[in-house]
Amino acid sequence: MKYFPDTKRIISVIGSSQPSEKEYNLALEAGRQLALQDCLIVCGGRGGVMEAVCRGASQEGGISIGFLPYSVEEANPYVTIPLATGLGEARNLLVVNSGEGVISIGGAFGTLSELGFALKSGKPVIGLGTWQVKDPRGQVFPAMIADSPEEAVKKIIAAISRKP
Amino acid sequence: MKYFPDTKRIISVIGSSQPSEKEYNLALEAGRQLALQDCLIVCGGRGGVMEAVCRGASQEGGISIGFLPYSVEEANPYVTIPLATGLGEARNLLVVNSGEGVISIGGAFGTLSELGFALKSGKPVIGLGTWQVKDPRGQVFPAMIADSPEEAVKKIIAAISRKP
Amino acid sequence: MKYFPDTKRIISVIGSSQPSEKEYNLALEAGRQLALQDCLIVCGGRGGVMEAVCRGASQEGGISIGFLPYSVEEANPYVTIPLATGLGEARNLLVVNSGEGVISIGGAFGTLSELGFALKSGKPVIGLGTWQVKDPRGQVFPAMIADSPEEAVKKIIAAISRKP
Amino acid sequence: MKYFPDTKRIISVIGSSQPSEKEYNLALEAGRQLALQDCLIVCGGRGGVMEAVCRGASQEGGISIGFLPYSVEEANPYVTIPLATGLGEARNLLVVNSGEGVISIGGAFGTLSELGFALKSGKPVIGLGTWQVKDPRGQVFPAMIADSPEEAVKKIIAAISRKP
Repeated sequence: MKYFPDTKRIISVIGSSQPSEKEYNLALEAGRQLALQDCLIVCGGRGGVMEAVCRGASQEGGISIGFLPYSVEEANPYVTIPLATGLGEARNLLVVNSGEGVISIGGAFGTLSELGFALKSGKPVIGLGTWQVKDPRGQVFPAMIADSPEEAVKKIIAAISRKP
Repeated sequence: MKYFPDTKRIISVIGSSQPSEKEYNLALEAGRQLALQDCLIVCGGRGGVMEAVCRGASQEGGISIGFLPYSVEEANPYVTIPLATGLGEARNLLVVNSGEGVISIGGAFGTLSELGFALKSGKPVIGLGTWQVKDPRGQVFPAMIADSPEEAVKKIIAAISRKP
Repeated sequence: MKYFPDTKRIISVIGSSQPSEKEYNLALEAGRQLALQDCLIVCGGRGGVMEAVCRGASQEGGISIGFLPYSVEEANPYVTIPLATGLGEARNLLVVNSGEGVISIGGAFGTLSELGFALKSGKPVIGLGTWQVKDPRGQVFPAMIADSPEEAVKKIIAAISRKP
Repeated sequence: MKYFPDTKRIISVIGSSQPSEKEYNLALEAGRQLALQDCLIVCGGRGGVMEAVCRGASQEGGISIGFLPYSVEEANPYVTIPLATGLGEARNLLVVNSGEGVISIGGAFGTLSELGFALKSGKPVIGLGTWQVKDPRGQVFPAMIADSPEEAVKKIIAAISRKP
């Protein structure tokens, strides 16, 4: 019997380890909503946005996987499954690749690298108070934006479900 | 509430995608034993030894995480949580780093690279019909060997538990 | 006798494999200027901006290192030292880390991931007709912009030289 | 004009950062021989075997590239082109992939992981007082062994040249 992914969607959440209070709260609520929608969360497993999303998920009995740079001791206390990668910053690629869709909250430079990988992958990406990036032709990304955590979760699930 | 790792040990299982029948059966039984001992399995998620260990775990209601090179479509049908890494062969480092101990079954060259990373990490490593490597001074690894899957699982859990 | 880096600066050039004609020409001239300033170029080694910068360097007798995803057969014909990495997209981290400063030309999603890594590293980054990224607080990056290849090369060398 | 690889072969040299005196001297002489045979050396760039091979090459005016874990400050003083990778241990994959053939000298666990990747790649690998690995069927690797640095260099160049 395979539990995942038959009954669960896997969503990557990316964001800063030093968010504003507002960004922390957005991530906390996003974590709750993802758990309520039966999504498995993958993230970088550390503090800030990563802690908030794991914390929110844990409040609703959800499951989060945290990909730590080197050691499980770097994990925030709410990660369900802490995994040491040994990959340092190269884990950013892993965080993005392991989800079916990506929610980007707030923004630090590491998040920007993940946003680049996410956009390149072609999978659905939604921004929630995050980086706004403009290419030389003036096109702006991420194309999909949410005003609230509820909207972000609803839209990313819909976008994933539309995929063939 | 954090489910892992309070109640579960995380064990890496490494081995070939093209094992002999004997190696496949060793891995199948190791998967069963790991599940019975309430261990979470991490592995490369593909065929052969990886399939067998996930299959064995699934027979006993256990959980396995499979780190795929690029896509979840590379996963064997028994992986509980298939994770696409985007890392290709560099995922070997991840498979080894994310476990608290490593069981090596059979042997291919990729397994050998993982065995090197595992020995370097200093975490417990046990061999079950696998590579035997001898350094220029004549020292042989892995130092810990098992004759059966039951013994391998028992010894690796004991070795992990002795760690400070 | 150590030739590098005593006599040469190492500059990373990032950019799309499918640039506009204008972007190709910016990169070609940047390659020439870097060679004239005795800089060693590191880049992704493939087509487009990467080809142009290697081509420009070769016109002035400069040296370029191209980090290919998997095989030297992916190299453009102007790379001086083609190196197969086996790392796929994770090589983006390598391209950025191996330079003392980064010039970003044009823009694709892979370039955006590199820009994130470059900004995170704290090393000097200059934009030449590239991504403009704005964080949630409205701050815009890269902070340093050039209007011409000559200016980009002059500014990045000055910025590197100011570093302690 | 492309200098590499038209006139130079690229050879990876792997080995411990804490070799015996004998291993250091083997690597020193291998570096000299590789330079005399007009080969570009790629290695991990740090101390021990890596230092010795770069030092030997520099004595004969050869060129070495050192892939450092995180910073050029980790480089030994004889590396011609020190490149910071930001990849930590994942750079082992890079060291092996960027050469056309691999010489393994002495042995530490990191070297063993590189030996695994090298054998998997299918490219020529030669051992010089290094790990001897035996698979479950009793087959021993590396299949090609040398008794002296001169023989190792001669054999690896011959093996590369035979490749289609």
